[in-house]
Amino acid sequence: MSETRLVTAAALIIGNEILSGRTHDVNLKFLGVELNKLGIQVREARVVPDDENEIIEAVNQCRKKYSYVFTTGGIGPTHDDITADCIAKAFGQKLIHHPVAEKLLRERIIKMGNEVTEARLRMARTPENADLLINEVSGAPGFKVDNVFVMAGIPRVMQAMFQAAIPFLERGVTMLSHTIGGYVAEGAIAIELESLQNNYKDLDIGSYPFYFGGRPGSNFVLRGPSLGRIDEAAGKLRVIISKLGGDPIDGGVVVPEDKGN
Amino acid sequence: MSETRLVTAAALIIGNEILSGRTHDVNLKFLGVELNKLGIQVREARVVPDDENEIIEAVNQCRKKYSYVFTTGGIGPTHDDITADCIAKAFGQKLIHHPVAEKLLRERIIKMGNEVTEARLRMARTPENADLLINEVSGAPGFKVDNVFVMAGIPRVMQAMFQAAIPFLERGVTMLSHTIGGYVAEGAIAIELESLQNNYKDLDIGSYPFYFGGRPGSNFVLRGPSLGRIDEAAGKLRVIISKLGGDPIDGGVVVPEDKGN
Repeated sequence: MSETRLVTAAALIIGNEILSGRTHDVNLKFLGVELNKLGIQVREARVVPDDENEIIEAVNQCRKKYSYVFTTGGIGPTHDDITADCIAKAFGQKLIHHPVAEKLLRERIIKMGNEVTEARLRMARTPENADLLINEVSGAPGFKVDNVFVMAGIPRVMQAMFQAAIPFLERGVTMLSHTIGGYVAEGAIAIELESLQNNYKDLDIGSYPFYFGGRPGSNFVLRGPSLGRIDEAAGKLRVIISKLGGDPIDGGVVVPEDKGN
Repeated sequence: MSETRLVTAAALIIGNEILSGRTHDVNLKFLGVELNKLGIQVREARVVPDDENEIIEAVNQCRKKYSYVFTTGGIGPTHDDITADCIAKAFGQKLIHHPVAEKLLRERIIKMGNEVTEARLRMARTPENADLLINEVSGAPGFKVDNVFVMAGIPRVMQAMFQAAIPFLERGVTMLSHTIGGYVAEGAIAIELESLQNNYKDLDIGSYPFYFGGRPGSNFVLRGPSLGRIDEAAGKLRVIISKLGGDPIDGGVVVPEDKGN
């Protein structure tokens, strides 16, 4: 495996409740950070409703375009949990009760003193060629089909399923980053920042403006695979910020609201 | 305009920082809630990197599929702000310095005691056939082209631009919702819940499980355009929950982590 191999991923967040604004997704942030630790770059995220056609279309578009797809949501036992059905249809596979998943689920149901019913066994359904993402947190495992990993929406459960997915994943290059902030307006630094970006094409230099304590400023994020190159560019950026009258702050200026425009 | 006309939207969140997990997006939730108040349903959201081809493809796919597209991010003055360029290319329009946006921006730059430079005027760039989203918060306005609304990523600025977008929007039907929670496991209620959903096809009944205080439970969201129908279904749902030994709680059970699986 080459050190510079780019391994990519898409996150597919499934659920009406995210689109309506009822629920604030936190899984994308987790996936972005944790996948990068493994050298996998999240290149796209989509939030789609609990709608069969929409889910199938998004899965099929993303699984062809990226190394991996991670879905969250829609694998519970109720009528609005249709992700397993959709993954099966996206791959043209039959939906089955996975024997191992069913065994694990039956044991959990009985242990909890409940009756084994068809509704409760619904969570054992997977496409016919699925590998399970067995974990200690959920009664029913998540699963993977080819390069698509199907996980729960509840963050605690999703994170346990993600741990079970790690052994399946090919590692690429991890992006490192360093943030430098300063009370320098973007408009004042833009030209020199672009010149720095042009001289460090192996880095991704982002500028995230803020307005805090009555003063405009920006946090600048240097991101790339080489710490040496990041340090070198960071040194030059500190000089630029100082020259413009802003004190460069390593780690960035912490502001209550800080998001790029 | 028919009362039942469905007006739809997609949110397009632009920025590497969201995908890397550095920044936690809050704009999608705002758009979901505020657009629904206007009778516009967000049916999809996409997060894409600061990459020209990706942005253009997402804009062109979404603007054909939904009544409106709302983009956030990438309209600042630095090299990584490429949204205006991409929107122009997506529509096959020239990118110009919008005369009104430039006038407003020049006034702001001078008022702040800064020199008018090409870099600072970069934020006045729009596709040639754009309407401006003029607001009091940002020096440079957002803009719209056809059914695509282009807004800043900083939430405070985005929200001001959104206010300026409202007069352009056609109103559809607002979805109302009512949440009922109870300590009933999803597996226990699944069949009766599905039957309720089948009897109320004009409602969207979602089930959002939780595990709190050592007990499993669910919040059930009834969503639809008619308060009368929601109330009717809510009454039946309360009976189902009670019968299963859970005390139905209007407004739902408040749990620290509550997201559908």
